[in-house]
Amino acid sequence: MAVYTEIGDGELQAFLKDYELGTLLAFKGIAEGVENSNYLLHTDAGFYILTLYERRVKAEDLPFFLSLLEHLAARGIVCPTPLKGRDGVALRELGGRPAAIFSFLDGMWVRRPQTVHCAELGRALAQMHEAGRDFPMHRANALTVADWRPLHERAYEAASEPDESLHAFLSDELDFLENNWPKDLPSGVIHADLFPDNVFFLGDALSGLIDFYFACNDFFAYDLAICLNAWCFEPETTFNVTKAHALLSAYEKSRPLTQEEREVLPILARGGALRFLLTRLYDWNTTPPGAFVTRKDPGEFVRKLRFHRSVRSSSEYGFDL
Amino acid sequence: MAVYTEIGDGELQAFLKDYELGTLLAFKGIAEGVENSNYLLHTDAGFYILTLYERRVKAEDLPFFLSLLEHLAARGIVCPTPLKGRDGVALRELGGRPAAIFSFLDGMWVRRPQTVHCAELGRALAQMHEAGRDFPMHRANALTVADWRPLHERAYEAASEPDESLHAFLSDELDFLENNWPKDLPSGVIHADLFPDNVFFLGDALSGLIDFYFACNDFFAYDLAICLNAWCFEPETTFNVTKAHALLSAYEKSRPLTQEEREVLPILARGGALRFLLTRLYDWNTTPPGAFVTRKDPGEFVRKLRFHRSVRSSSEYGFDL
Repeated sequence: MAVYTEIGDGELQAFLKDYELGTLLAFKGIAEGVENSNYLLHTDAGFYILTLYERRVKAEDLPFFLSLLEHLAARGIVCPTPLKGRDGVALRELGGRPAAIFSFLDGMWVRRPQTVHCAELGRALAQMHEAGRDFPMHRANALTVADWRPLHERAYEAASEPDESLHAFLSDELDFLENNWPKDLPSGVIHADLFPDNVFFLGDALSGLIDFYFACNDFFAYDLAICLNAWCFEPETTFNVTKAHALLSAYEKSRPLTQEEREVLPILARGGALRFLLTRLYDWNTTPPGAFVTRKDPGEFVRKLRFHRSVRSSSEYGFDL
Repeated sequence: MAVYTEIGDGELQAFLKDYELGTLLAFKGIAEGVENSNYLLHTDAGFYILTLYERRVKAEDLPFFLSLLEHLAARGIVCPTPLKGRDGVALRELGGRPAAIFSFLDGMWVRRPQTVHCAELGRALAQMHEAGRDFPMHRANALTVADWRPLHERAYEAASEPDESLHAFLSDELDFLENNWPKDLPSGVIHADLFPDNVFFLGDALSGLIDFYFACNDFFAYDLAICLNAWCFEPETTFNVTKAHALLSAYEKSRPLTQEEREVLPILARGGALRFLLTRLYDWNTTPPGAFVTRKDPGEFVRKLRFHRSVRSSSEYGFDL
C-alpha cells in the first residue's frame, strides 16, 4: 500500500482539463501498489484509477508499459487500460511525476488461491502471451540470470549480520544457473511478476491482470515458472502438484509447451525462486526493521528453491497427472 | 491515512451476505480517516465505503454516531449514511472489529479554503445544528473544559524535553477558562471537529460533512468557535476577518446567535484553540519522531490561542463587517 504524493484539488482539476472526463466528483488515495501512488477518481464519466509513478519505475520504461496495456486490452486481455487525453497522449505529468489514468478494474485478489484459480491463471497467462506476440516494442528483463549475481553481492554487503551459509548456498546456485540457463526458448512479452495480488477474480473467474511494471521480453516458460513459485506452494511451502497440473494444463490448452520448454522447466523454476529470493533478501537487508514497509521473508523462497533443486524430472510438476 | 485491518475475501463475502447489495465486485483500502480503516466497496448496487472502527473510537459510542448520521441524513444533511443489513442493523462486526457500510459521498476537501467556502460552511453548520435538535440520544463532550487540565498534565509528563514556559502559559490559560467557561448557552449536537478535511466540496459548493466521531452534545457556539480556529486563519496563522465574517453571517441566516453567545465567543475560541493544542501536544510528545503517523505541529494552535487572548470584543470576529 502506498500513497506518496499529495495532489491538490486545483492541480488535479487542471490535469483533468486535458481529458474528456467531465466534472471531478471524488478523489481518494487507495492502498494498492507498492511502487506507485494510486488514487480512485470519480468523474461524470465514471470511476477510474489515477496512477502517479514514484521512485522504482523508470520513466523511460513507461511508454513500454502503457503501450503494452493498451495493446493487450485491444486484444481482449482484461487489464487496466490507459485513457488518452484530448491530444491522444496517455502518459502525462501531475505533481511533478509521470501520471496516467486507467479504467477501473473490478475484482479482488485471492489470499488463498485454490486449484480452480490456478487453472484460470494458466488460461489467462497463455492468452496474454499470445496477445503480446505482435506487440512491437521491446524491453529487456532487468532481473534475469546476468543480474542476479551482482544483486546477490549487494544484498550480502548490505546485511548487518551476513549469513555465510546462505551466501555459499546462493553462490553455488548462481554457478549452476549461469551455466545452465537456456539460451533460446519461445519468447515474447511476459508479465514477470504474476503473484496472486496481481490477479483479480470475481468469484472463481479471473477478471483481470494488473501491475505490469516488471513486464519485459523473455522466455514464455519463465513466466510459467514464476507462477509455479507464486501459486503452487501451500503456506507451509510444500509444493501442490494438483495446482501445478491445473496451471500447466490450462496454459497448454492455448499454447502447448515445446519438449525443450518442458525439460528446462525445473531450471526456470529455480531461476524464478532465486530472482524473488534475491530481491526480498536485498529489501530485507536494506530496510530498517521499524520502517513502515512490510518486509517479506526471503526464507520462503529459500525453501521453494530447495524444492526445485530436488526435482529430478519435469513430470514432477504434474504435466501428466 | 490508514488501513489497519486486513480483510480476507471470504470473510468479506460472508459479511456482505447480511446486506441487500448483490455481488461483491471490488474492495480497496483507501487512505482516509486516521482513527479507522476505510475501504472502497463496489457491488452490483453501486459504490460504498466500508469502515472498520479501530483503537480510538469507543465501541459504546458507535450507536450514537451511526444513529446521528442516519438522523441527519433523513433531515437533508449530506453525510455518510449508514446502510442497514437485512435485519435492520447498521452496526455489525468484521475482522473482529465493529464495522459499518456507508453511502459513497462525492466531493473533495479544500486544501486552501477561501471566503466562499467559509460561507458554505457557516450555512451547513447551522443547518446541521438545527437538524440535530430532535435527535434523542446524548453523548457528553469528552474533550471539554474539565478534561483539558488532566490532558495538559499528561502531555507535559510525556514530554522528553518539557517546555516549562509553555506549561506555565497553558496553566494560566486553564485557570482563566475554568473560571470563565460559560455554564449555559444554546446547546445540541455539535460536530466538534469540523476542520477542512472533514468538509467536502464540489467546485465551490459544499457537498457533504464527514467524520462525526467527535460529535457530542455541547454549546452550538463552541462548534462555531472550532470552525473559526480551523478555517479563518491564513497559513502563517494570521486571522482573516473576512472569512470569519462569511462564516458567522452565513451561520446566522439559519440560526442567529443570542447576545450572550456573541459575547462569550472569544472565550469559546480560546477553548477551541486550547483543545486542539492539547491533543496535538499530547500526540507530539507521545509519538516517536520516526513513526509513520504525521505529527501535527502544536505551535500553530499556540499562535491561534494568543490571537484569541488579544481579542477585546466579539466584533473583532467580523460580526458587523
